[in-house]
Amino acid sequence: MIPDALFHPKSVAVIGASRKPEKVGHGVFANLIQAGFPGEIHGVNPGGGEVLGRPVHSSIEGIPGAVDLGVFVVPPPAILDGIPRLAEKGMRAAIVISAGFKETGGEGVGLERALRDTARKSKVRVLGPNCLGLINTHARLNASFAAGTPPAGAISFFSQSGALCTAILDWAIGENVGFSKFISLGNKADISESDVMEYLSNDPETRVILGYVESIDDGVRFLRASREVTAKKPVILVKAGSTAAGARAASSHTGSLAGSDRAYAAAFRQGGILRAETVEDLFDFALGFALQPMPRGDRLLILTNAGGPGILAADTAEKLGIPLAEISAELRGRLSGKLPPTASLGNPVDVIGDAQADRYREVLSAIREDPSIDAVLVLLTPQAMTEPEGTARAAVQALAGSGKTAFASFLGEASVKEARKILSSGGIPNYLVPERAVRSLHAMLRYRRSQGGVPQDTPDLAGIRREEARSGIGAALAEGKKTLGEEESRSILEAYGFRFPRHVLAQTSREAVQAFEEMRRPVALKIVSPDILHKTDVGGVRLNLSDPESVARAFVEITSSARRMVPSAWVAGVSVQEMVTGGREVILGMSRDPQFGPLLMFGLGGINVEVLKDVSFRVAPLSRRDAVEMIREIRAYPLLSSFRGSAPSDEGGIVDGLLRISRLSMDVPEIQELDLNPVLVMTKGRGIQAIDCRMTIAEAKP
Amino acid sequence: MIPDALFHPKSVAVIGASRKPEKVGHGVFANLIQAGFPGEIHGVNPGGGEVLGRPVHSSIEGIPGAVDLGVFVVPPPAILDGIPRLAEKGMRAAIVISAGFKETGGEGVGLERALRDTARKSKVRVLGPNCLGLINTHARLNASFAAGTPPAGAISFFSQSGALCTAILDWAIGENVGFSKFISLGNKADISESDVMEYLSNDPETRVILGYVESIDDGVRFLRASREVTAKKPVILVKAGSTAAGARAASSHTGSLAGSDRAYAAAFRQGGILRAETVEDLFDFALGFALQPMPRGDRLLILTNAGGPGILAADTAEKLGIPLAEISAELRGRLSGKLPPTASLGNPVDVIGDAQADRYREVLSAIREDPSIDAVLVLLTPQAMTEPEGTARAAVQALAGSGKTAFASFLGEASVKEARKILSSGGIPNYLVPERAVRSLHAMLRYRRSQGGVPQDTPDLAGIRREEARSGIGAALAEGKKTLGEEESRSILEAYGFRFPRHVLAQTSREAVQAFEEMRRPVALKIVSPDILHKTDVGGVRLNLSDPESVARAFVEITSSARRMVPSAWVAGVSVQEMVTGGREVILGMSRDPQFGPLLMFGLGGINVEVLKDVSFRVAPLSRRDAVEMIREIRAYPLLSSFRGSAPSDEGGIVDGLLRISRLSMDVPEIQELDLNPVLVMTKGRGIQAIDCRMTIAEAKP
Repeated sequence: MIPDALFHPKSVAVIGASRKPEKVGHGVFANLIQAGFPGEIHGVNPGGGEVLGRPVHSSIEGIPGAVDLGVFVVPPPAILDGIPRLAEKGMRAAIVISAGFKETGGEGVGLERALRDTARKSKVRVLGPNCLGLINTHARLNASFAAGTPPAGAISFFSQSGALCTAILDWAIGENVGFSKFISLGNKADISESDVMEYLSNDPETRVILGYVESIDDGVRFLRASREVTAKKPVILVKAGSTAAGARAASSHTGSLAGSDRAYAAAFRQGGILRAETVEDLFDFALGFALQPMPRGDRLLILTNAGGPGILAADTAEKLGIPLAEISAELRGRLSGKLPPTASLGNPVDVIGDAQADRYREVLSAIREDPSIDAVLVLLTPQAMTEPEGTARAAVQALAGSGKTAFASFLGEASVKEARKILSSGGIPNYLVPERAVRSLHAMLRYRRSQGGVPQDTPDLAGIRREEARSGIGAALAEGKKTLGEEESRSILEAYGFRFPRHVLAQTSREAVQAFEEMRRPVALKIVSPDILHKTDVGGVRLNLSDPESVARAFVEITSSARRMVPSAWVAGVSVQEMVTGGREVILGMSRDPQFGPLLMFGLGGINVEVLKDVSFRVAPLSRRDAVEMIREIRAYPLLSSFRGSAPSDEGGIVDGLLRISRLSMDVPEIQELDLNPVLVMTKGRGIQAIDCRMTIAEAKP
Repeated sequence: MIPDALFHPKSVAVIGASRKPEKVGHGVFANLIQAGFPGEIHGVNPGGGEVLGRPVHSSIEGIPGAVDLGVFVVPPPAILDGIPRLAEKGMRAAIVISAGFKETGGEGVGLERALRDTARKSKVRVLGPNCLGLINTHARLNASFAAGTPPAGAISFFSQSGALCTAILDWAIGENVGFSKFISLGNKADISESDVMEYLSNDPETRVILGYVESIDDGVRFLRASREVTAKKPVILVKAGSTAAGARAASSHTGSLAGSDRAYAAAFRQGGILRAETVEDLFDFALGFALQPMPRGDRLLILTNAGGPGILAADTAEKLGIPLAEISAELRGRLSGKLPPTASLGNPVDVIGDAQADRYREVLSAIREDPSIDAVLVLLTPQAMTEPEGTARAAVQALAGSGKTAFASFLGEASVKEARKILSSGGIPNYLVPERAVRSLHAMLRYRRSQGGVPQDTPDLAGIRREEARSGIGAALAEGKKTLGEEESRSILEAYGFRFPRHVLAQTSREAVQAFEEMRRPVALKIVSPDILHKTDVGGVRLNLSDPESVARAFVEITSSARRMVPSAWVAGVSVQEMVTGGREVILGMSRDPQFGPLLMFGLGGINVEVLKDVSFRVAPLSRRDAVEMIREIRAYPLLSSFRGSAPSDEGGIVDGLLRISRLSMDVPEIQELDLNPVLVMTKGRGIQAIDCRMTIAEAKP
């Protein structure tokens, strides 16, 4: 929990308040004063004297009375020394602006650890180090060295890049965009993005939370926090460094398809977070949430004075699946008398090029009470007769308090400058081009959708023998094994409720034939060797053998082929397995992500995974809803429902299988990667059957 | 050919020059004068007198001397009357600004036809009607009623939406973006986008051609023009209304997957046109082409004073496949002495937060001559020590004339305003966010790539019996047929060189068995009925029959199943076909697009087409290069090369098949839709074999 003192202090001390204007310690002190902070402001500087006309204290102990927020702009040793001393005076939160910690490597890493320890001991929460500071416009608190304070508003923004903070502040001040809290996270020695999100979720002055994230240290905490926060208000994040993680060595299908960005994408989705691809999108989307009511439904009306921009908006709506509202006969009737006959009463409604503000006003007041319209986009291109300012005023008047979600795109520059200001101060977000307005509505609709639906339940799974699986893995590790083939993985998976075909390990062709005869069904033969991972590649698999001669021949061919192609392999024997037919092949897998832990994968088997990479990912622990979503997300999903009249596959069986792998990967952290491939999905109600599997294991990290 | 008089007239007459400032005819006359047109300007108005201090003539005949360009701002009848009279005085081109033509429907359609006829008779080319007019900054010609004239530059823009023209002009004037020609196409009664593109391709004052297009009337002409124009200079278009075309009734796979936007996408691609998704992208991309030299290679250097924006730029580069330049050891050596030790000498090069202009200058002059860097992106975030203007000047000095393609993104607003102006007048395009700069470089690289490669050859195909196919279709049409099943389509396709398996039409089970025995191979049986299109759905297909009893039984079952399920169907018999095994199933298809004519489709068979919609399209006539590209474009393409050690498929055979369908669809315009599905592709060198096919036919439109 972030103490309230960080954002709403009563008394702030700047340790390192400097007289020299070029010093950061001067900038912070000046910002505190210039932003009009109404509480006490204390400067501390060994030299004492005055800064900006205010007396500064020569020591922390010289500050009269209590201090609840400390801002540090001094070298690391002085910070480590100062925190306990200010804590004595009541400090609950500290902002460490100074650099010289983890980011410098070497000694700095130790200093950062010491900073964290000192803060914990002193019961002080620390923002930073190596950050720009923070701003809370509503408390008139600017505890940063940013060049200015943005206007007050409902958007809160946190950033792992201080420089991006300065750029966005500069833009916000220039464009008059209102902010609530502005938080530079720095090195995140203590306070993390999860802490900040939790705090802002309870902040009545924040309507939408934005963030720029490069890395997340505690993925599990982040996912939990996201779920809680996004249930209350929207969170929009840019994740940078998305593709830079590069390939990792992986020996499973799942591992080779998983990647850092897959894990982030999955976690964001499961956490209900809206991901913006660019910083521009971040703020585009934010404006809608900050200024407008949530759309009650998804039906959009586009109002324009020109065809082209209307088409561009309608195109974007169609691409994003946003339906254009139907114009009712009644509405058409009301409008037709008030607009020229050349106006178009479809959707877009086109009041045509010579429209002045009055035509816009007529349409907007007519639709104000229309229950079949949820959102309105007002477009304007500056033509000879156009009245941009009057139209902006008409839009603000008609749409304010209407309950409709309103956007505008007044195109051009010089002619619409004043009109844009009118829109902006009237609370209607304006976008340079119509497409961006529609995409912002789409972000709001996505958030709305993510709020409903199945709750995130914790699934109850029967018949799990946890200890059996753990001891099996423990024994394999004790033997120094790193990879478990089908024979060795199977019992672990059976302990988590997976069914496999009947099977017998044969060491001679006679044993193989005997096993076949006992099964009284066609069989498959597969080589069993810890040294052979890809059995098919060495001729180690034969399918659908239905007479004793074929079985005997296959045994000989398989073993001799394996010996020829992998002479060094130790061969345990040949597995004789009952052939299972019918069903669709799918793959269920898991690989472990460094930030988020177990990352589960689902896909249709064969080329769908390997060539088309048509797979979906989620972070464990999986809710039932997560499992359903990951199945339905793949492009080939129609194949699992009734395709071309075939019976639908047992989706419930896949959900159950995914939930069991999720549980297994949480329970047995030694499993690093897992492929269940193929798994046959039978028709509805008949479950799934695992055919082949393998896993890699390692001592779990603490 | 557009006459030069349209853009470079010697003498312009405005028919309808008006004294009243609110009239369009006044605006046009005023623009001509205010833009400083150095040639003669004549106003014509029945009232005579003076407009803006210049005498106007009361009739066309009153104009002294010759006129080569006429601008019409009078009602349609006066235009029809005036064109021949001004043509008498030497007019070669006319701009018809007035509305009241096709866009009003009814009578207007006839007026527009009359306008076109009159113009042709008078040998005058017409821009419009119902347009904003045109601007040629370099000739100081503003023959439009736009509110102002943009600065001169190298970008030319044409638009089918006049309102979008006004918005973009307003923006260009506000942001000081230079233009060469500005052309509002209006209703395109005569001059089309293809005419304009051709003219601009030969215009030395145009470096890049932009356009906003809603519809293209003559797709074949457009494709030909595009190929010629883009070989000379880049063309970037926004196509609006892309998704609005909606579904068309289609009975083939190809027809149901084809759509208007697929045809536009294919034609743009074949024509070498860069498609921008939004108007914003259009101008983002244009700035790079207009201001910077084409990149000599694709290696990008990113220079920044902050990590975050650098990562955002690098992410975008990686997503778009743009390699970051390697920093050579030598360059690293040169820089390390000049930058602080905390600077990062990777790529991005990070001169860190306290960098002033000098550090940027050091890096930029060091890389100026480095042959391993092709493009440079200079990023700046305004921090305490930052010198935005000095840095902008350093960038302009170091990069001008360096041969490197340079972009900048100076983030923020108030602090970087002046710096942006310096960049802009120094010819370095600046973007609000780094991602947009990288995407603009990507557009230049895409254009560069489209310039090379295999030339667009006209393939030479052997063994085509055109007349046989034409008479086959003619006979079917004469019989009133609209759909041709396998039996009837096959001979048409055989005449174009397609091979089918051996087949016999059997009318009794005895005949079927006899056919099977003569083939001495396993066979497939398929119902033959003009009333049954989807044979499988009615139990009308049996595969892989290898003994006489199975063949006899299959015959009975097929015919009785078909009779039961489609009692009304007339059954011609059962086709006994040799089973072809091996090979990969693909689909080759064609449907006819209203604008572009034959639209060819390629995809892998089965679920790849129906569920995954993994198909590619091109417009006929296909070049060999088009055919190769469409095969390689599908996601499942790896399956056709050597996949998992299997022999590669005969790609050349598919290319040949596609070229033959292209030819067939050009030669026989009566074929409306065509599915060859499946076609089996054998291993390399062994060609393709068509298994099933059908087509729909209709009288060809003239």
